[in-house]
Amino acid sequence: MSPDPGGLGPPRDFGELVSRASPWLSGDGPHGGMVLSTRIRLARNLNNVPFTHRARDEQLQGVVANVATAARSSPSFDHSLLLQMSDMSPLERQVLVERHLVSHELGDGTRPRGIVIASDERLSVMINEEDHLRLQVMAPGLQPSEAWSVADAADDDLGQGLDYAFSDDIGYLTSCPTNAGTGLRASVLVHLPALVILKDIHQVLKSVMQVGLNVRGLYGEHSDWMGNLFQVSNQTTLGVTERDSIESLDRVTRRIIEMEEKARDRMLRDARVQLEDKVWRGYGELRYCRSITSREVIERSSVVRMGIALGLPGLCPIRVVNELLILTQPAHLQRASGGEMTQAERNVYRAGIVRERLEAAERDAGHAA
Amino acid sequence: MSPDPGGLGPPRDFGELVSRASPWLSGDGPHGGMVLSTRIRLARNLNNVPFTHRARDEQLQGVVANVATAARSSPSFDHSLLLQMSDMSPLERQVLVERHLVSHELGDGTRPRGIVIASDERLSVMINEEDHLRLQVMAPGLQPSEAWSVADAADDDLGQGLDYAFSDDIGYLTSCPTNAGTGLRASVLVHLPALVILKDIHQVLKSVMQVGLNVRGLYGEHSDWMGNLFQVSNQTTLGVTERDSIESLDRVTRRIIEMEEKARDRMLRDARVQLEDKVWRGYGELRYCRSITSREVIERSSVVRMGIALGLPGLCPIRVVNELLILTQPAHLQRASGGEMTQAERNVYRAGIVRERLEAAERDAGHAA
Repeated sequence: MSPDPGGLGPPRDFGELVSRASPWLSGDGPHGGMVLSTRIRLARNLNNVPFTHRARDEQLQGVVANVATAARSSPSFDHSLLLQMSDMSPLERQVLVERHLVSHELGDGTRPRGIVIASDERLSVMINEEDHLRLQVMAPGLQPSEAWSVADAADDDLGQGLDYAFSDDIGYLTSCPTNAGTGLRASVLVHLPALVILKDIHQVLKSVMQVGLNVRGLYGEHSDWMGNLFQVSNQTTLGVTERDSIESLDRVTRRIIEMEEKARDRMLRDARVQLEDKVWRGYGELRYCRSITSREVIERSSVVRMGIALGLPGLCPIRVVNELLILTQPAHLQRASGGEMTQAERNVYRAGIVRERLEAAERDAGHAA
Repeated sequence: MSPDPGGLGPPRDFGELVSRASPWLSGDGPHGGMVLSTRIRLARNLNNVPFTHRARDEQLQGVVANVATAARSSPSFDHSLLLQMSDMSPLERQVLVERHLVSHELGDGTRPRGIVIASDERLSVMINEEDHLRLQVMAPGLQPSEAWSVADAADDDLGQGLDYAFSDDIGYLTSCPTNAGTGLRASVLVHLPALVILKDIHQVLKSVMQVGLNVRGLYGEHSDWMGNLFQVSNQTTLGVTERDSIESLDRVTRRIIEMEEKARDRMLRDARVQLEDKVWRGYGELRYCRSITSREVIERSSVVRMGIALGLPGLCPIRVVNELLILTQPAHLQRASGGEMTQAERNVYRAGIVRERLEAAERDAGHAA
């Protein structure tokens, strides 16, 4: 994976950043029909500075300055963008949260915090989240090894200018012990509608847990898995190598993909018409709605994404439905509309965005079937 | 109303007949946004021939021959088409039933029965239904007086060559006493979605009954009024003039229209967005479905028809949704597909017809909004 495949270069400012679709949702990565994205996160802290929650504000300001300097001289962060949370409005910070660039914790702008964003949003570093540095790589589809290589190189680059807290016994030291060691959290966002519909999902989730990985619904827990999206990630960071974690995630995700594929085949064999009908009616609702909730977008997008992945002709590119998940979130809507909105107004505005995106895709394709 | 406003002329044969859309569903009649059609039916019997259910087959054959002869020399039935039920397959007869040209009773082809169809399907005579003649006029929208004029003229025409059973005391004699007198049943097919949604419909139906008219759901009784379509008709035929019946139906229908208009205004005022959303999602489902039941077509068509009548821009002409009600019925589908179909196959074939019609309308309009 090249760090900037789109060739767009890093965004010049916040406005340019958020006017773009998140490139890691392009749907063109390996297994893009089932795996939306791969994420690598590395937790790092600086020696001789207390962990974020115990440090004083001037110490945190020092961390921001040091990381920014290190990034400037790092090839991985060539032409990167530094955003300080304190310079941003709550709405702008929420936009970054919705883009998965910034955690909820960092989105709270009360302390000296920031993010360095490089390479088309695929590489970034949150500064003074739970750890001093949280290096993050996002990639479309299933590519943990490739994303890991990018993260590893960026980590090495930054490490040239920073003194990481590291113990020979433990590895990288982190604010929360569950991250100590590699400081690595590798995760994939998978779409498993057929396993959910056929009620095989519980068994699958259980078996993923049994091999030591963690799995949870992206938009909800227990049996209400909105949009059938699941995040699978490694649990262990101590006493393992990064390579172990990456390979285990890759292996288990491929196994999940196989099971979802089998479930989709079964659905196509047993209920092809009902499936096509459900997909196309979902598309029809998105294409023509005049008011729509976030939840409905997530749910209808899920069936349409499945239809696209199954190769039903005439639907839009998978990128379009993936992007809807971000572009229709409240802060994105509010920023696009330029003002505060009630929930009812948001639903109407959201419907407008959804219709517009699908219409544009139809025009690009010269028409839906 | 001119008897043949479309200028198409009468169909030459059954195939040509059923390849056309029923012209009385054109939606371009007065109050076409709420009143689909007006129907006039006159029951007549011949002197010196027993009523249909008591006559012998050769007597009924005589009736068919006499009516056909009378029609041939009647200006109202210029170039008309005579179809004998015994010459037609059960499927063909069912097609006529679905087009509202023929009653279920006449559709049963076991006795000498027929229909003379003139003037673009708007004027016809069923022969040997419950009465020897059932003259029928169909017109788009609310126009009972105009339809009555056409029926009256045709009745006079036919009467020249036929000896009607008539008593000075009673009027026209009919097989069932409830039709004796004028032999007239005048009815309108009204679409009352707002009154149903706002739950005012029970009160309206009650008040219609109280003024001596009859009202019933077209596709279902009690509270399950599929498609929100209602048939309002006169009840009394004895001791009243035709003019009385026609005027009373016209007056009461106008009153119902006013109530539906007020209910629609109220809905637009209180829930415009929800209404628009419901209309357009209904459209989206029809536009993209891959399998759809008759009931769903009737229900989705109902909301779309309301949207068109409310003037929401970008929807198809009302004619298109009206015609779907006929074209998606089982016998029409079976005839169009050219073979027997299971229910599941019909649902798929029906979805194809629905999509095709809406796509064609979009092409005609240069695009839906």
